[in-house]
Amino acid sequence: MVPNLSITQLDQRLKPAIQAKINSKTKPLGALGQLESLALQIALIQQTAEPVINQPTLLVFAGDHGITEEGISPYPQAVTYQMVLNFLSGGAAVNVFARQHGLQLRIIDAGVNADFENNPSLLQAKVAKGTANFRWEPAMSDVQCMNAIEHGRRIAQQEIKAGSNVLGFGEMGIGNTSSASAIMSSLCQLDIKLCAGRGTGLDDPGLLHKQTVIQEALTRHQSALGKPFETLCCLGGFEIAMMTGAMLGGAEHGAVLIIDGFISSCALLVAAQMQPAILDYCVFSHCSAEQGHQLLLEKLGATPLLTLEMRLGEGSAAALAFPIVKAAVSFLNEMASFDSAQVSERRL
Amino acid sequence: MVPNLSITQLDQRLKPAIQAKINSKTKPLGALGQLESLALQIALIQQTAEPVINQPTLLVFAGDHGITEEGISPYPQAVTYQMVLNFLSGGAAVNVFARQHGLQLRIIDAGVNADFENNPSLLQAKVAKGTANFRWEPAMSDVQCMNAIEHGRRIAQQEIKAGSNVLGFGEMGIGNTSSASAIMSSLCQLDIKLCAGRGTGLDDPGLLHKQTVIQEALTRHQSALGKPFETLCCLGGFEIAMMTGAMLGGAEHGAVLIIDGFISSCALLVAAQMQPAILDYCVFSHCSAEQGHQLLLEKLGATPLLTLEMRLGEGSAAALAFPIVKAAVSFLNEMASFDSAQVSERRL
Repeated sequence: MVPNLSITQLDQRLKPAIQAKINSKTKPLGALGQLESLALQIALIQQTAEPVINQPTLLVFAGDHGITEEGISPYPQAVTYQMVLNFLSGGAAVNVFARQHGLQLRIIDAGVNADFENNPSLLQAKVAKGTANFRWEPAMSDVQCMNAIEHGRRIAQQEIKAGSNVLGFGEMGIGNTSSASAIMSSLCQLDIKLCAGRGTGLDDPGLLHKQTVIQEALTRHQSALGKPFETLCCLGGFEIAMMTGAMLGGAEHGAVLIIDGFISSCALLVAAQMQPAILDYCVFSHCSAEQGHQLLLEKLGATPLLTLEMRLGEGSAAALAFPIVKAAVSFLNEMASFDSAQVSERRL
Repeated sequence: MVPNLSITQLDQRLKPAIQAKINSKTKPLGALGQLESLALQIALIQQTAEPVINQPTLLVFAGDHGITEEGISPYPQAVTYQMVLNFLSGGAAVNVFARQHGLQLRIIDAGVNADFENNPSLLQAKVAKGTANFRWEPAMSDVQCMNAIEHGRRIAQQEIKAGSNVLGFGEMGIGNTSSASAIMSSLCQLDIKLCAGRGTGLDDPGLLHKQTVIQEALTRHQSALGKPFETLCCLGGFEIAMMTGAMLGGAEHGAVLIIDGFISSCALLVAAQMQPAILDYCVFSHCSAEQGHQLLLEKLGATPLLTLEMRLGEGSAAALAFPIVKAAVSFLNEMASFDSAQVSERRL
C-alpha cells in the first residue's frame, strides 16, 4: 500500500540560463559556494530564474510512542503533551527562531496521548492517543498509517493553496528517536548500533538498553519489514507518518521542503523510498549531533547547510537554516552583474 | 612598535549563573549545541545573563596591493575600486545579506588606488593609493601601518559610541589573499604552500607562481619578520592593518567581533599576537573554501559557525552568520524554562 500520487523529477531545461545568471553576478565564479547550488535548486523547483519565497511555514507534528513503556527515553511521555503546550504559548526554541525569521508556525497533534482544549494555533489531527509499543506489536494499523499520511498530505496542500511555497518540518514526540532509528535500520539495512543514539541524553547503559529493545523489535517484525509503508506501520510514530505525508504533499505541489534533524530525515527516508524524486525538492538544514544522522544524510545524498552540534528537533534547525535559503534567493534576484555594475571580468 | 592599549580576558565569575540559565530552558541539556556556547560567550562579553544586540554593524575595509604587479590575481587591480562603487550602490553580495539581516554597512577606503567622489556611505580613511609591492620592498612604512591601525581603532570606537555592540569585519582588495597568506605563513611559521590558495580562482600554474612570488618575498624580508607589527608592515595591506586596528578597538570597548573569512582571520591573527585576549571576543562566522583558512582557524582555536564552501570575503559570511548570533541571544532571553512552562525534567 502506498499513497496514490506521483512526484516528478525537476525539469532541468532552465538550468543553463539560471547558471548563467548566477555566474554573471559580481563575485568570482562559484565564490558563494553552497548558496549557489541552493539558488539553482530553488529556481529549478519554481521553474524560473526569479524565484520568490512566499509565506514560509514550519509544520511541527507531535505524537506519542508506546515504546516509551520500555524506558528508552530519560524523559516521561507526558513531556510530549507539555511541550505542545509550550509551543502553543510560544516558549520553545522553535517559537523563538520562527519569530526571529518570520516563519508561520503550525502545531499539529498527530497522536499525542492527551486531550487538548480548542486552540486556534493547534491543528487537531489526532490518529490515536499514541502508537502501540512496537517491541511487541506493530506501532499502528495499515488504516491508521494511511490516515496519518493522507492527513499530512492534505495539511501541506492546504498551506500551499493558502500561498506558502516553502515548508519546513519539525516534530515532538518522546521516544521518537527509537522509532526513527528503527525505521532507518530497517530501510537502509544498517546495524541498529549505527542508527540509534542517545536521543535526549541517555547514558551508556541506557543507550545499550535502547539498542537491545529496538533490535528485538526488528527481529520480531522481520517478515513484515522491507517496504516503506509496511515499515512505517510497524515502527513508526503518528507524527513521523504524518510528516512523511506532508513532505509528499509538499513536493507534489512544488514546494521547497526544508528538512530538520534526525527524525524528519527518517520521515523523508520513508517518503523517498516511495517517491525518489522527492529528494529534488529537499533542502537539508542541519547535520545533527544525534548518532545516525550523518550516515542517514549520506544515504540520502544530502549536503546539510548547518552543522551546529544541535540535537533538539522541533524544526529548530529548519528555522535556523531558513535565512540561508532566503539569502540564496536574494543574491540571485538582487546582486548586480559584472555588466550592470561595470566591474571588470577576470583577465587570466 | 605596538598600539598602546590593553584587552582583558573575560571575567568568568558570571559563568555558573549564565550556564544555569541555559540549562533551565525547555530542551535536553546541551541540545542547542554551538548556540549554547555562543550564548554563554556573548553573555560573558556583556557581563550579563540578559545580553542584547544593538545596531549590529559590518565594517568593510578596501585597499589595493602593489603585489598585483606580479600577476598573482586573475582580476585586474581596478576591480577593487569598481567593487567599492558596487558596495556604494548596493549591488554586491554583502549589501544583499546586510539588508536581509538589518545590519548597518560601513564602507571604508583604507587605501584604494583611485579617488572617490564624496559619498555619505563611504568613510574616507585612505592611507595611500595602494601598498608598495612586497616582493621587492616593505608593503608600507611603520608610520603608515600605525596610522592604519589607529584609524581602524577609532572607527570601531566611534561605532560603539554611537550604540553598536556587535561589529562584523569584511574587506575588498585585489591581491589580498597573497598579503594575508604571507602574513599567516610568517606568523604561524608554516610553509607557504599550506597558506596560499587560489584566491579569486587561480589555475594550477597561477597558484604555483603566486606561492613562488610570496616565498621569494618571505625570504627577502626574513630578518624583519617575526613580530606582528613588523610583519604587518612588510606584508600587509592597508585594509588588513585597518581591520586589525578595528578589531583591537572593538574588543577594547567590549563589542562582540564577528570574523569573516580568510583575510579577516589573518587580520585577527595579527591582533591576537599583539593582544591574545582579543580571542575571547571573537565569533568565527565561516570556514572558507580558500586554502589555508581551515588551518588558520585551528591555529586560532576557532570553531566556525558555517561551512558553506564560500570564498568571497566582503563580510559576506559575517553577514550570513549574524542570524545565528542573534538566535543565541534570543533563545537565552525568550525561551521558557522547565519551571515556567511546567515541563517535567528528566527522570533517568
